[in-house]
Amino acid sequence: MAKNGPVHLALLGAGTVGSGVARVLAQKRDVFARQLGRPIDIAGVLVRDAAKGRPDIDPGLLTTDAARLLDDPAVDIVVEVLGGEQPALDFMTRALEGGKYVVTANKEVMAKHGPRLLALARQRGVDLLYEASVGGGIPIIAPLKRDLLANRITAVSAIINGTTNYILTAMSREGADFAEALRRAQELGYAEADPSNDVEGEDARYKLAILASLAFRSPVRPDDIYREGITKLTANDFRYAAELGYAIKLLAIARWQDGGIQARVHPTFLPADAPLAKVDGVLNAVQVEGDLVGRVNFQGPGAGSLPTTSAVIADVLDAAQSIVGGRREVYAAEEAPSRVVPMSELLTRYYIRLTVADRPGVLAQIATRFGEAQISIASVIQKETHFDAQTAELVMMTHEAREASMQSALAAVAELAVVQEIGNFLRVEEQ
Amino acid sequence: MAKNGPVHLALLGAGTVGSGVARVLAQKRDVFARQLGRPIDIAGVLVRDAAKGRPDIDPGLLTTDAARLLDDPAVDIVVEVLGGEQPALDFMTRALEGGKYVVTANKEVMAKHGPRLLALARQRGVDLLYEASVGGGIPIIAPLKRDLLANRITAVSAIINGTTNYILTAMSREGADFAEALRRAQELGYAEADPSNDVEGEDARYKLAILASLAFRSPVRPDDIYREGITKLTANDFRYAAELGYAIKLLAIARWQDGGIQARVHPTFLPADAPLAKVDGVLNAVQVEGDLVGRVNFQGPGAGSLPTTSAVIADVLDAAQSIVGGRREVYAAEEAPSRVVPMSELLTRYYIRLTVADRPGVLAQIATRFGEAQISIASVIQKETHFDAQTAELVMMTHEAREASMQSALAAVAELAVVQEIGNFLRVEEQ
Repeated sequence: MAKNGPVHLALLGAGTVGSGVARVLAQKRDVFARQLGRPIDIAGVLVRDAAKGRPDIDPGLLTTDAARLLDDPAVDIVVEVLGGEQPALDFMTRALEGGKYVVTANKEVMAKHGPRLLALARQRGVDLLYEASVGGGIPIIAPLKRDLLANRITAVSAIINGTTNYILTAMSREGADFAEALRRAQELGYAEADPSNDVEGEDARYKLAILASLAFRSPVRPDDIYREGITKLTANDFRYAAELGYAIKLLAIARWQDGGIQARVHPTFLPADAPLAKVDGVLNAVQVEGDLVGRVNFQGPGAGSLPTTSAVIADVLDAAQSIVGGRREVYAAEEAPSRVVPMSELLTRYYIRLTVADRPGVLAQIATRFGEAQISIASVIQKETHFDAQTAELVMMTHEAREASMQSALAAVAELAVVQEIGNFLRVEEQ
Repeated sequence: MAKNGPVHLALLGAGTVGSGVARVLAQKRDVFARQLGRPIDIAGVLVRDAAKGRPDIDPGLLTTDAARLLDDPAVDIVVEVLGGEQPALDFMTRALEGGKYVVTANKEVMAKHGPRLLALARQRGVDLLYEASVGGGIPIIAPLKRDLLANRITAVSAIINGTTNYILTAMSREGADFAEALRRAQELGYAEADPSNDVEGEDARYKLAILASLAFRSPVRPDDIYREGITKLTANDFRYAAELGYAIKLLAIARWQDGGIQARVHPTFLPADAPLAKVDGVLNAVQVEGDLVGRVNFQGPGAGSLPTTSAVIADVLDAAQSIVGGRREVYAAEEAPSRVVPMSELLTRYYIRLTVADRPGVLAQIATRFGEAQISIASVIQKETHFDAQTAELVMMTHEAREASMQSALAAVAELAVVQEIGNFLRVEEQ
């Protein structure tokens, strides 16, 4: 960078976010130059097809040659908005190795390789900034990194997938079943044609890996996180949840437990008056618990071109300030890595929905199996009796139990002749 | 500060927050030293009575002599947690003039003198940090200063007084009237013996002045902000609000309108499904609208010793990082001051509750007065008829109207012989 000259930025990707970044940098060039003392110039934009016109980008800046940007010593900041693991990972690594600041919106790369890339950045004396990788424009990475630094974080609980929250909200409000709610979400553009990444919880798992690694200052990989999607939920589950005073949300939870980190993504029973239970539609929310602050909650649109652009540009301005005014290491000390607590050690309450034979003595048999596994039943309600099939639906809530005990109890219950089906079982958060 | 030696901090005040800050700095000394590269030491604590024992503070640090701390060149950071306008303002001014970083939790000083003190800090090359002055431990100042910097902020709407939100929640849930809900809040320690600062909206006005000045990068003084408390609300207002699909909240609103800033604190009709309508009890919430990010929402405990300590220490760590690693000017450029839009120019919808004579032709007379003021009525419901008094209660919702027109229409209506009383009139936010 020329002394007192502009800060030079290379943009990898010119999709909706990349175009948004280019447009906003141009529109607000004077404002940012005033804030920074120098303008931010785009040095080049990596695209797959340089012939394709892009309304927000000067055609002269387009290139298909990544090396031209990554190896250009005049480039100070590389903004990666390609998405996907490769070639984004290689490009980011190369940029960091070359001593460039990197700003990314890439949840997959940050979830899988974040700790290693962050260490590389520190080693090269630059920053790798990733606010846009979780929760769209909601400031959550920066608050965890800086504003809550006085706290020991004890838990992060989040609704970080707008597609599934839209579907669950529709199921809850309208009694829709999963397939119908998904179809509607697809029609509205809230769900993709192949929705599995969202509805199976994979997207939320990536984001939780990023949040947990930062909150606990210890690497948490996606594979460390238990994952369960929302496809097995039925309209009845929502009906019973409401009767019992609960909402059902796909929560991503990371919690400090027994000297380690317990991390999981699954549909969760949540008291209806809990703040996260009231987060509806495509909104995202991240709740952070700290030893001093208690519970704080960050909400907003978790996706979309403009919100993501807001987060990318905040990081670009942060990087530019470091380049202009000198870099500040925000937290130098990594703690020693913590163990990841396996799912079998989880201690929580459960909701269980069973289809059973409608005759005397059935409950005693089931209760015996739970008792043998040291699981104490808090309440049982018999719902919907089907006279033709001679079956009934049983809804049970347990007291706190270990996941391992619950799994073995469920296996034993499933083998009972009087049990036709274990319809669903869900973990309960008492927030 | 000795090179590589500890960072020295002077604490002004040893009440619950001051003691909390001292305790946490001691408890987490090693963690912060690792993060910072150097420890943070308390150089002295200003108190009124140095003989009084304080469990969290070394008695040798106590002093009643402010000058000893403020004029000590070894002191790097002054933490002001005295509260109240004076002598806090003098102490902060003196510390800044001496080139010391200042961290404060003082909403009154920041609301009344913030712009001038911030300019003084800039001029002396230090920072004045005030995260704890609004919203307790909720990170809101830092996100407005940094993380949303790419945005042009268009509005801030906040529930920033826990006492009034507790009272309004009780009135809404239990049909309690104001006096009863206040008494309960006082019993629980959520309201002071003299609650007027809270229930009249003065506390919220201070905090809004701070938020608005920062969000719009233009000084907004408390006196610029229209203020109305919650004491006139009745159980009937909550009942009618619920029937109409609204909640009632004491909102602090600052909005960009007609090239200026419109700022006000008053009880507000809010659609029941708006995120702010769901913020209950003593919780605080700040909703920020930006041109890129849309609406983001920050929630958490808005008061209390530990949450406030969390915010104070985050600022202390920020200041310490600047001292150790070099200061970064976060936003250098102040925009030109914007005009404050007077309340009379407000454009909004209204809810009006009237006690009127229960006889034919009354509505026609009232509607005529509104029509003459160019105010269009959206709906009218006649509620509760009192046969003995021969009166009825009328509830009206208007379309958008100017505040000035509304005030003159209300004055005209109040003069009608058939109108016994204007029970209440409230502004409506369609969020």
